[in-house]
Amino acid sequence: MLRAKRPTPPEGAATTQIRHHVAYYETDAMGIVHHSNYVRFLELARVQFMAEHDRPYTEYVNEGFHIPVTRCLVHYLRACRFADPIDVTCWLSWARSASLGFAYRLEVASVLVASAESDHAITGLSGAPTRMPEHMRARTQGWLGQST
Amino acid sequence: MLRAKRPTPPEGAATTQIRHHVAYYETDAMGIVHHSNYVRFLELARVQFMAEHDRPYTEYVNEGFHIPVTRCLVHYLRACRFADPIDVTCWLSWARSASLGFAYRLEVASVLVASAESDHAITGLSGAPTRMPEHMRARTQGWLGQST
Amino acid sequence: MLRAKRPTPPEGAATTQIRHHVAYYETDAMGIVHHSNYVRFLELARVQFMAEHDRPYTEYVNEGFHIPVTRCLVHYLRACRFADPIDVTCWLSWARSASLGFAYRLEVASVLVASAESDHAITGLSGAPTRMPEHMRARTQGWLGQST
Amino acid sequence: MLRAKRPTPPEGAATTQIRHHVAYYETDAMGIVHHSNYVRFLELARVQFMAEHDRPYTEYVNEGFHIPVTRCLVHYLRACRFADPIDVTCWLSWARSASLGFAYRLEVASVLVASAESDHAITGLSGAPTRMPEHMRARTQGWLGQST
Repeated sequence: MLRAKRPTPPEGAATTQIRHHVAYYETDAMGIVHHSNYVRFLELARVQFMAEHDRPYTEYVNEGFHIPVTRCLVHYLRACRFADPIDVTCWLSWARSASLGFAYRLEVASVLVASAESDHAITGLSGAPTRMPEHMRARTQGWLGQST
Repeated sequence: MLRAKRPTPPEGAATTQIRHHVAYYETDAMGIVHHSNYVRFLELARVQFMAEHDRPYTEYVNEGFHIPVTRCLVHYLRACRFADPIDVTCWLSWARSASLGFAYRLEVASVLVASAESDHAITGLSGAPTRMPEHMRARTQGWLGQST
Repeated sequence: MLRAKRPTPPEGAATTQIRHHVAYYETDAMGIVHHSNYVRFLELARVQFMAEHDRPYTEYVNEGFHIPVTRCLVHYLRACRFADPIDVTCWLSWARSASLGFAYRLEVASVLVASAESDHAITGLSGAPTRMPEHMRARTQGWLGQST
Repeated sequence: MLRAKRPTPPEGAATTQIRHHVAYYETDAMGIVHHSNYVRFLELARVQFMAEHDRPYTEYVNEGFHIPVTRCLVHYLRACRFADPIDVTCWLSWARSASLGFAYRLEVASVLVASAESDHAITGLSGAPTRMPEHMRARTQGWLGQST
């Protein structure tokens, strides 16, 4: 809960921010964004994080591995609506040799609308767990910043 | 347009009907089913048609081919809402050696809500066009019924 | 984590089970169900729980309230694939005057593939928090079973 | 078919182009974009067309009307994959007092991957057909360009 309430990256951490404008097809009959779509917004930010700080996801696949989600937690704080510009900030929150975790802050006009976490395994293309490629592992420590 | 207005299979044609209850996540901020989801309902019916009259789609994949959509047309006649039971009736409307077409009628409580058509190619797993497997081709004529 | 590892309803709790066959449009390029769709499967089970043990969701809306998701947690244990029959078991894990929580177990052929939790607020149709209607509140205690 | 094969706006027509990068959650187990998602890409372009040439869709809703889809046709020419940048060009193809139609061309790196058409009704917020607001009607003729 504490992490969810203060979704701020550690000092020096690598971060990525994307802006996603809510599409009409992402709304539901409550007139708001369906909650399942936030999980997709996280993916948009995470993919961009990897592309910015490491490499495009397609290259991981070419190297023979995937980074599937093993756990996902979303705190929904305020409803979003059609056309809202959602700013998703994403950073690496932890990393081990065969798994890693991201944290996310979602804002509309600088107001926090949701926070989230996702955990991931490293697997081969067939889904079997494996270790992170060396080039990636070497860089993850630099992305983490200083946790105190 | 005529086909769209009288979406009825020819006499003797193989048909499949599925019932899909509209999920909340399929609605949009108009309070109705988002129109893109109808394309998914067609797929549910088509997959069931193949399973009932030929074989599960997973077996086609095991045999090394796919049946991708090359054209899709939907006529939306009445809006559907959360929890509506949509009955999708599906039948083969034409078949050639390397392509085929389906037609669909969508009803809620026997009221026509939409009609649709989809055309398909037969491809290998990499997407290259190929001929229909012999076992499938032999059966398609029987599915067509009598067109007059 | 412990709850996630032993996703079993307390003795005497009301439960609902639905079976969802994975649609082709729910898969992704890894060949497995995209993780965002699990959040939708939870909704299918929860909506059925309410319909079975209380009333259809459409009646809540007619009464003037919604039950939006305020938090959602999913643990992904094994990948699911096209056509897999996913059995989602759902039960109420806690209830207060203006909020409640559900827990979920997802299985394919009796093998645990995921577990999940969702928290919910009670709101008016405009999204403002409100108390649970009396008829619903009276019943929630009966749904909880005995937690020890 | 001819229109589908030469999806080009008439001279002088108003056009809008958006670029959509394919998200991972838009792919399916064939490794390509699921065909239902193209219908969503059309919506992204159409919404942008209205915003650019008339007003944001949210203002239509504030004025009390919707522009639901009554017919949608997509020709799928080449498969798209994760991360592909799809350029969707959209223009008005016809307009009457209570309905209108759009046409679309979808390209990746200047290669045509799909073409599409959508027809729309003008309705009140409850879904009943109505006439186009005067301000919109006055502008539609200017969007059409010269059809010969």
